[in-house]
Amino acid sequence: MAIEGGAVVSTSANLTELETRALEAAINVADGHARQYLTPAQQQIVDDFPRLFKEAERMSYPELNARAMRALMRALGQHEAPIAESRFLTCYASSVAMEILARALSDRFRSVGLIHPTFDNIPDILRGLRIDLTPLGEPALLSGDVSDVLPPGVGCVFITTPNNPTGTVLPEERLALIARACEHRDVVLVLDTSFRGFDPRAQYDHYAVLERAGCRYVVIEDTGKIWPTLDLKLGCLVLSDRIDLPIARVYSDILLNVSPFVLAMVEKFAEDAAGGGLPALQAGIAENRRLLRSTLAYVPNVSFPDPDSRVSVERVLIGDGRDAVAAWETLRQRGVHVLPCRPFHWANGSEGDAFIRVALARPPAVVEAAGRALASALTARA
Amino acid sequence: MAIEGGAVVSTSANLTELETRALEAAINVADGHARQYLTPAQQQIVDDFPRLFKEAERMSYPELNARAMRALMRALGQHEAPIAESRFLTCYASSVAMEILARALSDRFRSVGLIHPTFDNIPDILRGLRIDLTPLGEPALLSGDVSDVLPPGVGCVFITTPNNPTGTVLPEERLALIARACEHRDVVLVLDTSFRGFDPRAQYDHYAVLERAGCRYVVIEDTGKIWPTLDLKLGCLVLSDRIDLPIARVYSDILLNVSPFVLAMVEKFAEDAAGGGLPALQAGIAENRRLLRSTLAYVPNVSFPDPDSRVSVERVLIGDGRDAVAAWETLRQRGVHVLPCRPFHWANGSEGDAFIRVALARPPAVVEAAGRALASALTARA
Repeated sequence: MAIEGGAVVSTSANLTELETRALEAAINVADGHARQYLTPAQQQIVDDFPRLFKEAERMSYPELNARAMRALMRALGQHEAPIAESRFLTCYASSVAMEILARALSDRFRSVGLIHPTFDNIPDILRGLRIDLTPLGEPALLSGDVSDVLPPGVGCVFITTPNNPTGTVLPEERLALIARACEHRDVVLVLDTSFRGFDPRAQYDHYAVLERAGCRYVVIEDTGKIWPTLDLKLGCLVLSDRIDLPIARVYSDILLNVSPFVLAMVEKFAEDAAGGGLPALQAGIAENRRLLRSTLAYVPNVSFPDPDSRVSVERVLIGDGRDAVAAWETLRQRGVHVLPCRPFHWANGSEGDAFIRVALARPPAVVEAAGRALASALTARA
Repeated sequence: MAIEGGAVVSTSANLTELETRALEAAINVADGHARQYLTPAQQQIVDDFPRLFKEAERMSYPELNARAMRALMRALGQHEAPIAESRFLTCYASSVAMEILARALSDRFRSVGLIHPTFDNIPDILRGLRIDLTPLGEPALLSGDVSDVLPPGVGCVFITTPNNPTGTVLPEERLALIARACEHRDVVLVLDTSFRGFDPRAQYDHYAVLERAGCRYVVIEDTGKIWPTLDLKLGCLVLSDRIDLPIARVYSDILLNVSPFVLAMVEKFAEDAAGGGLPALQAGIAENRRLLRSTLAYVPNVSFPDPDSRVSVERVLIGDGRDAVAAWETLRQRGVHVLPCRPFHWANGSEGDAFIRVALARPPAVVEAAGRALASALTARA
């Protein structure tokens, strides 16, 4: 990265290391974890934790697991998701799911096509296992010749949808096209849908599309981004029938089961989401997005490159030759933590140099304070 | 493994896969998770979950983390454990800690010395990263020339203490000797102490010994085996000062933080453990061990090879030429799940052929029923 205000900023810090520094900050809009307030209905579930614990204690694990996963998939519109035990592997978190998947992929493939930009722990986990990555830009994923998405030699294509940080959603027709091409070329299609709860456009039934195409697929589902449950959460690996990768074996090396209590909690939160909680969440994020944009409206040459994004993070293009790492460092010294976007652009960091990412899954006052601090920092430097 | 009663038993199933089949069994004494009853004091903490959630919501993460880890280390006698953020990495579970450590080790070492026997996910995770393993038998670890513990070319020595399934504890003087030899040879010493809560002999201050020796070390601590919190748990990686392995970096690829709620819960359970909960736990396990042994007392040639073990699993030497996989299969057909010990003996499976492992962290009635079923199965086959 860069040197600013006398503080040496490591050139090799990853996004999570930057987020770690924010965990005790006065104003933390760095990480994408869910840190908004509980709704009254969600608070009632938390108030009911002791009863939930009792219920989870006496239920069979496979039943608890199936119930929670069915409720979650229903809330997210994924009606054809296969809930069978052998095809729905519940993990402690989506990054644990990612690590398990990466281990299994590295057993078979030396080369993976990966969406660009995206959160850096995905390329870092894959590269750490000596997998070569080919960047797949969002424009190529969204339109044009589908064979551009399947470069020769690539055994697997990995797409985050909605994407982090851009919010870009892979539409149904395009997913169908890519899935059919993957089937034809016997390429494994991986989708990371961790942010889909925020965007109804990402809630068409992906599994119906994937099953129709008949391709080999893995989908990473996640509860961690949407509910402010103090990181009581689950990530899931959902597998096509004939996946032919040692995913279940690696899974069994890492875990036997997730917490039955967390499963019981996820079922309740998912039922609440289906019964109105999800639109309420989306409205809260939209309001925070408007708030952030309005606090920055008067700053010259600042703009929002993802006007249509609905995910819980917002990119700010700080323009005017301003440097995102410098702005990040200025804010950091004032106790406000955001993320500079360079590491998201894992194949070409400089593409991210003019972008800041601000998390929106926060109480509105936090987003507003972060927006004002960013406005002040950018105005002072302009 | 073997073929029994017409059912083909996969020759390649690992212990966790066998445990998975037991998750919905009538009588599951397969896995080593904590499934005994909550004590009244522990039940009070669970009843207080909503207040704990509120408390965790408003506290800073680093403070919560430090408080929980300090309470845990105090309860386990580890007073000199370094609680500094950079040296105490809290993970979702001990196996996630293991995976992170293995990834970091594979970056530097091609060869690791590993205790033999031990739970098979440890060798499986290491081998999955193409690390060669040298078995270190318990006798060599416990006595004799310490250089036998550090074969040439080995960059790291990995010891589970108390060991699973044998319960063997590495005594203080022997740890000191091995740690000094590791320092001298610049070998990294790894201890997995997940079962130490069961055995006061494993609660001398390991960190005092390690720091005095001055070796590079990693200790895996765990709350998952001791408290019946429905797998709300933590694993930890505790690092020596100059560890010089990319552990923190891999950690940040996998997680930003564990659940603040789980941290708050761990603090309360650790305080309860220090205030009498740990002796109560140990007494309960001792009682279940007596119960199991008494149900099997009349079966000819059955014996208990670990008379002094205090951990929450018990090995049964079924003797008389009986085969553990056959006994396991007979029991399985009756809805009783145990573990055959062959996979623990990762370097020489046949050494484990005459042993069954029975989990003791269960309600006494479950242990007794399992013991009776095992007695019946062994008597019928004798």
